[in-house]
Amino acid sequence: MKKDSKTKSSKKLTDLGEFEVINQLTKDFINSNESTVLGVGDDAAVIDFNDNQILVSTDMMVEGVHFDLAYMPLKHLGYKAVVSNLSDIYSMNGICTQITVSIAVSNRFNLESLEELYLGIKTACKFYKVDLVGGDTTSSTKGLIISITAIGKAKSKAIVKRNGAKINDLIVVSGDIGSAYMGLQVLERENEVFKVNPANQPDLSDYTYLLKRQLKPEARKDIIDFFDKNKVIPTSMIDISDGLSSEIMHICKNSDIGCDIYEEKIPLSEELKSACDEFKLHPTTIALSGGEDYELLFTINQKDYEKIKKSNDLTVIGYITDSKNGINLVTKSEEKVPIISQGWKSF
Amino acid sequence: MKKDSKTKSSKKLTDLGEFEVINQLTKDFINSNESTVLGVGDDAAVIDFNDNQILVSTDMMVEGVHFDLAYMPLKHLGYKAVVSNLSDIYSMNGICTQITVSIAVSNRFNLESLEELYLGIKTACKFYKVDLVGGDTTSSTKGLIISITAIGKAKSKAIVKRNGAKINDLIVVSGDIGSAYMGLQVLERENEVFKVNPANQPDLSDYTYLLKRQLKPEARKDIIDFFDKNKVIPTSMIDISDGLSSEIMHICKNSDIGCDIYEEKIPLSEELKSACDEFKLHPTTIALSGGEDYELLFTINQKDYEKIKKSNDLTVIGYITDSKNGINLVTKSEEKVPIISQGWKSF
Repeated sequence: MKKDSKTKSSKKLTDLGEFEVINQLTKDFINSNESTVLGVGDDAAVIDFNDNQILVSTDMMVEGVHFDLAYMPLKHLGYKAVVSNLSDIYSMNGICTQITVSIAVSNRFNLESLEELYLGIKTACKFYKVDLVGGDTTSSTKGLIISITAIGKAKSKAIVKRNGAKINDLIVVSGDIGSAYMGLQVLERENEVFKVNPANQPDLSDYTYLLKRQLKPEARKDIIDFFDKNKVIPTSMIDISDGLSSEIMHICKNSDIGCDIYEEKIPLSEELKSACDEFKLHPTTIALSGGEDYELLFTINQKDYEKIKKSNDLTVIGYITDSKNGINLVTKSEEKVPIISQGWKSF
Repeated sequence: MKKDSKTKSSKKLTDLGEFEVINQLTKDFINSNESTVLGVGDDAAVIDFNDNQILVSTDMMVEGVHFDLAYMPLKHLGYKAVVSNLSDIYSMNGICTQITVSIAVSNRFNLESLEELYLGIKTACKFYKVDLVGGDTTSSTKGLIISITAIGKAKSKAIVKRNGAKINDLIVVSGDIGSAYMGLQVLERENEVFKVNPANQPDLSDYTYLLKRQLKPEARKDIIDFFDKNKVIPTSMIDISDGLSSEIMHICKNSDIGCDIYEEKIPLSEELKSACDEFKLHPTTIALSGGEDYELLFTINQKDYEKIKKSNDLTVIGYITDSKNGINLVTKSEEKVPIISQGWKSF
């Protein structure tokens, strides 16, 4: 993918002005939600929800802090920025219906590069049936900054917070975890190799799954649909954006409980295990501290276990205990080790 | 005001981590809207509106592009950032109820400086009865970036868009315009003087009103309340953030109509006129191109003129015509001059 194509038609943002840039970038977004009464183009969007509560989540991504355009194509960045916001709405057991996207860009970006970014945003909007209803486009003194606000809905009784986990509840995780972080390790290594020898053509075919998890993650709307279909309401839920250890600590602290998580139960991909061998890293450490998997971590009452079993993509990894027990990992050698948050920090 | 106080207690953001920073900054915000079911602290906020449509608006401000901390104290910046977003909700004839605030900061900021910023945000939230319900706090590679999303409500029949102006409608503006821009001119001049002689103590007492308009602008919630009380629904409305010329062009283009605006009717403050004399600038040019006044520009059916007259703070400045007439300023010498947008551009 061309990241900063300099063709004859390349347009400078300074020649276009803000309104033309917004028009150009959003002209072929199509709304798919009835609740979207008025979208981009006025002072505010208008949204109509009748019988639902509204969910709002917001997130900011800064070039050089959250992403590196050396290995993150702009289209993927746009997709991932949307996904990470949708994931926050799904983790409340809600459905995302609208987003706003604000960006600040330095003068090294042209219209084509922003169109790549918005192509990724549009692809995510289409896949997840979310409407872009507003935003702001401005210049920055350095780099690219993306701020997204996601708006969703849920029946009030279905909303799942972080504070509802109860003693003896089962702890469940969707998909597998750690692979997104390992994908980043692969990309960073290849970038170092590239710096030494730009002619080097890397063979990344062994890492396809890890790279997909890093570059084009998905949010687990399908799990929310599964809950709805199977009449399961988790007692607490969070999405895994900062690593399993950080997220389970949020649930435990907010619910004022403890937990035991079993190391042998943590779902890991085969690709993660083999890359960990190669990089001499411990897969459990990666799963605990990695982040950016956008899987769902939730707790359920034991009576719902039979329902959860219907999905091949959900794994019970432990259970909730009294807070006095603390927050622990039970290792494969059956030792209990307190979990310390080592999740990704933005400062 | 201390902008970057370096006292003994000064805390580095890197020592605190993201969650502690957010907790510290938002701990004494108090919600004042029943619709706020769940605020800061989970993956998403939860908002409940029953019989209303929801308005959403978003805005991004970048240091060095939208503001200069050399003359904008952080507390005022926080206040103004909120006001500029509320203004977008009011300009739809809605009431703002919640905001989310995301910030990215470089390592030259400490916790005390962010607390100053949030003190301004809190002051605005309290004054306008708006709840802070979420946000993101992260690091930037350069400067301060603020992204705010405002959420509001309105009865569907009361929502006023940019596209409803009709031929013969009156064009009305609230307050006076141009003073905010002139305040910026004063601040920039003093900053240049300060660079030459830092010992110089400027006497800014002649410019109090202009500086207030630039540093602590207000959004016109009172006008929305006036509309409600007097049963007036404008046919179109926009807030003046980029200058009168740019805003009237938005209304005309969206409504597919033209207009005549009378130069002599444009409301200007005495302080603006006298500063324009001093700076050798034309007040009409400043009013047309200035921006950041956050006054409301709207159109009404002539039958509502008697109602509008009840307010001393609303001025009829012209009327809507057929689109063939174009968008014109009728000068004091009765010449018709086409209005060209020279509003503030972010690129």
